[in-house]
Amino acid sequence: MKKHGIAILGFGVVGGGVADLITNNREEIKSYLGCEVEIKRILDLRDFPSSPFSSLVTHDFTDVINDEDVDTVMEMMGGSHPAYEYTVASLKAGKNVITSNKEVVANFGDEFVRIAKEMGVSYRFEAAVGGGIPVINPLLGCVRQNKIHEVRGILNGTTNYILTKMFTYGDSFENALADAQAKGYAEANPAADVEGTDACRKITILTALATDKLYDVKTVHTEGITGIRKADVLAAEKLSHKIKLLGRCIAEDGVNYVMVCPFLLPSDSPLSTVSGVYNAVEVVGDPLGNVMFYGQGAGAGATASAVVGDLLPIIAYGSENPIVPGFNRVSTPADEAFLRFESKKYIALPKGNEEKVREIFGNVDFIESEECAFITECESEARTNESLEAIGVPCLSKIRFL
Amino acid sequence: MKKHGIAILGFGVVGGGVADLITNNREEIKSYLGCEVEIKRILDLRDFPSSPFSSLVTHDFTDVINDEDVDTVMEMMGGSHPAYEYTVASLKAGKNVITSNKEVVANFGDEFVRIAKEMGVSYRFEAAVGGGIPVINPLLGCVRQNKIHEVRGILNGTTNYILTKMFTYGDSFENALADAQAKGYAEANPAADVEGTDACRKITILTALATDKLYDVKTVHTEGITGIRKADVLAAEKLSHKIKLLGRCIAEDGVNYVMVCPFLLPSDSPLSTVSGVYNAVEVVGDPLGNVMFYGQGAGAGATASAVVGDLLPIIAYGSENPIVPGFNRVSTPADEAFLRFESKKYIALPKGNEEKVREIFGNVDFIESEECAFITECESEARTNESLEAIGVPCLSKIRFL
Repeated sequence: MKKHGIAILGFGVVGGGVADLITNNREEIKSYLGCEVEIKRILDLRDFPSSPFSSLVTHDFTDVINDEDVDTVMEMMGGSHPAYEYTVASLKAGKNVITSNKEVVANFGDEFVRIAKEMGVSYRFEAAVGGGIPVINPLLGCVRQNKIHEVRGILNGTTNYILTKMFTYGDSFENALADAQAKGYAEANPAADVEGTDACRKITILTALATDKLYDVKTVHTEGITGIRKADVLAAEKLSHKIKLLGRCIAEDGVNYVMVCPFLLPSDSPLSTVSGVYNAVEVVGDPLGNVMFYGQGAGAGATASAVVGDLLPIIAYGSENPIVPGFNRVSTPADEAFLRFESKKYIALPKGNEEKVREIFGNVDFIESEECAFITECESEARTNESLEAIGVPCLSKIRFL
Repeated sequence: MKKHGIAILGFGVVGGGVADLITNNREEIKSYLGCEVEIKRILDLRDFPSSPFSSLVTHDFTDVINDEDVDTVMEMMGGSHPAYEYTVASLKAGKNVITSNKEVVANFGDEFVRIAKEMGVSYRFEAAVGGGIPVINPLLGCVRQNKIHEVRGILNGTTNYILTKMFTYGDSFENALADAQAKGYAEANPAADVEGTDACRKITILTALATDKLYDVKTVHTEGITGIRKADVLAAEKLSHKIKLLGRCIAEDGVNYVMVCPFLLPSDSPLSTVSGVYNAVEVVGDPLGNVMFYGQGAGAGATASAVVGDLLPIIAYGSENPIVPGFNRVSTPADEAFLRFESKKYIALPKGNEEKVREIFGNVDFIESEECAFITECESEARTNESLEAIGVPCLSKIRFL
């Protein structure tokens, strides 16, 4: 039976999960891939003296590059550097690269795909969005014959867990975050999750897959959930809505509106039923209608499943990958269009501003609340900003409706 | 630009949807496939004098077979015959075949896959399960490196619509069915839907994809929803559960439990939130956890999307398809194992049998009801059947818990 040699870069949670999957599911992998997968090298700064893989560990990346038996490099280090350098070097050495690292895909995906094509190898990253959920392969392989109107998703499990706690148990953001940290769902430094950075990288990748345009992540309008207050949860419940942090890319008349921010979702929206650490991605296309992919968006096992799954097309069809994402880097900032993005919004101002709101926003719907809370017409970001400026009092909350 | 010629067999709802998609999304298809798709022939018994495609219509299948410009035959006739004969002839003529016809896949999939392999062409059927939802390609292409414990799904939109109406509006089965027929969701003769036959074909296909075993559909334990009464809906609501018609294949210690029947689902089950004509398929694997694919399970546009989507791997990778389902036909009847399948069950008997139930079923939980309704322990089908026989009164309802 053929053997396919792999190297694991980064022997942390996901890298360890991949090693476990390859060990525990040896039979499934053999029958699935028609080929054995053998771990040849593991690159990490640490040693793992008590691991059954300890003899494979190296601290020197050139050991990976120079090993002719390594067909595919699995990069699970996270971060941009040295993941970027190692990816480029691996591809240039004629090795396929599979990654779970959304940061490096969002920042440099266009370059990796170009080099991979030149070298006749594959660069694949199913695990970078939605953990174990098949999202990228179905998006690339099953739906692009449609006119894609929108890709939207709950792309970060930590923030979805926190919001679920706030809705189910009435927790404050601070308490829900502390609970997520205690359970290991949130990092000690949770900024990348709660401020939306992680979701922003993922929606940037999904946007590139759906529209062929790769935006600079720094230009994507990104709000996290740190500003969501108990009063907002109460207001949402009064409206029978839930608040979810969504990444969205809406393609309309040649314009892409790309954003990460909390949204108010009606209870019949499929995404509103996605709870806890689960993720989901919804694609809306013509004539497809809407389809949704749902599952565990993180965790060693689920992510490892996606990483190892990316071997199948490489082994079945060969290294050369004709179904590549159209990662065309665009210089237009993504948030340029965002000011023209139209939505209904829930807005909370300090009590006592009702008269001014009526005067400036017109005939809005007020929500029963201890604050001056109301719902705007469907209007552009620019318009809402102007109105709020004209009112001239601090805005306590502004949350868009889906 | 390259051209890929197709023939449409059956110019009904789905066939028409495919022609519309190819016409309306010409640009998307070109950029997606890197190739133009051209309809060369349309086979139907009818003429379509007012259709823009009227000149392509033929009543003679040999026109399709003899047309060298037809690379791929799309079979959307439904039924086993002559779909079977046309599929075999097309494959043997060296043409790829794509189908939306679950009946012919469930009955003859093994033979088609074998002939396709011999001829170096593709046989693909994404549209046969879940309409527009990518299910089969992700199942074949993304998750088989896991130990698959279960594939289960809401596989029929008509019955899900009827059950949703019964739960949301308290409709009787008869009224909900009449409404579904009025809206065009159910056929005049709804037997294949409401008796579970359609779902049975689909779970037979999914079972073959997940376990490599193709069972005779006639041996799969199949119950429909015709026996679901208002009293059952009320009992389910008392338990905060919903009733859904599920196809399930549970793989446990080398045994496959394959079935189609109504189940009681707790409200936190992802499948319980799937309403109306939507379908969803959930896959449970190790270390993947559970993932779900959700969307429109029928309709011209959604199904056409899946049919046309199956062209991508053919055009990108060539006709020869190394990722084929392990359609190994097994002679063991699927329902042989079913008698050993264990589940908790809700059972309703005529009022007044409480004493007998306690005597024979032991310490069960009774549900407040005008009937003698109770919940059994988790026990085998055989055991429950024996107990019911011993009680010897007509069973009004027996619905399993998920």
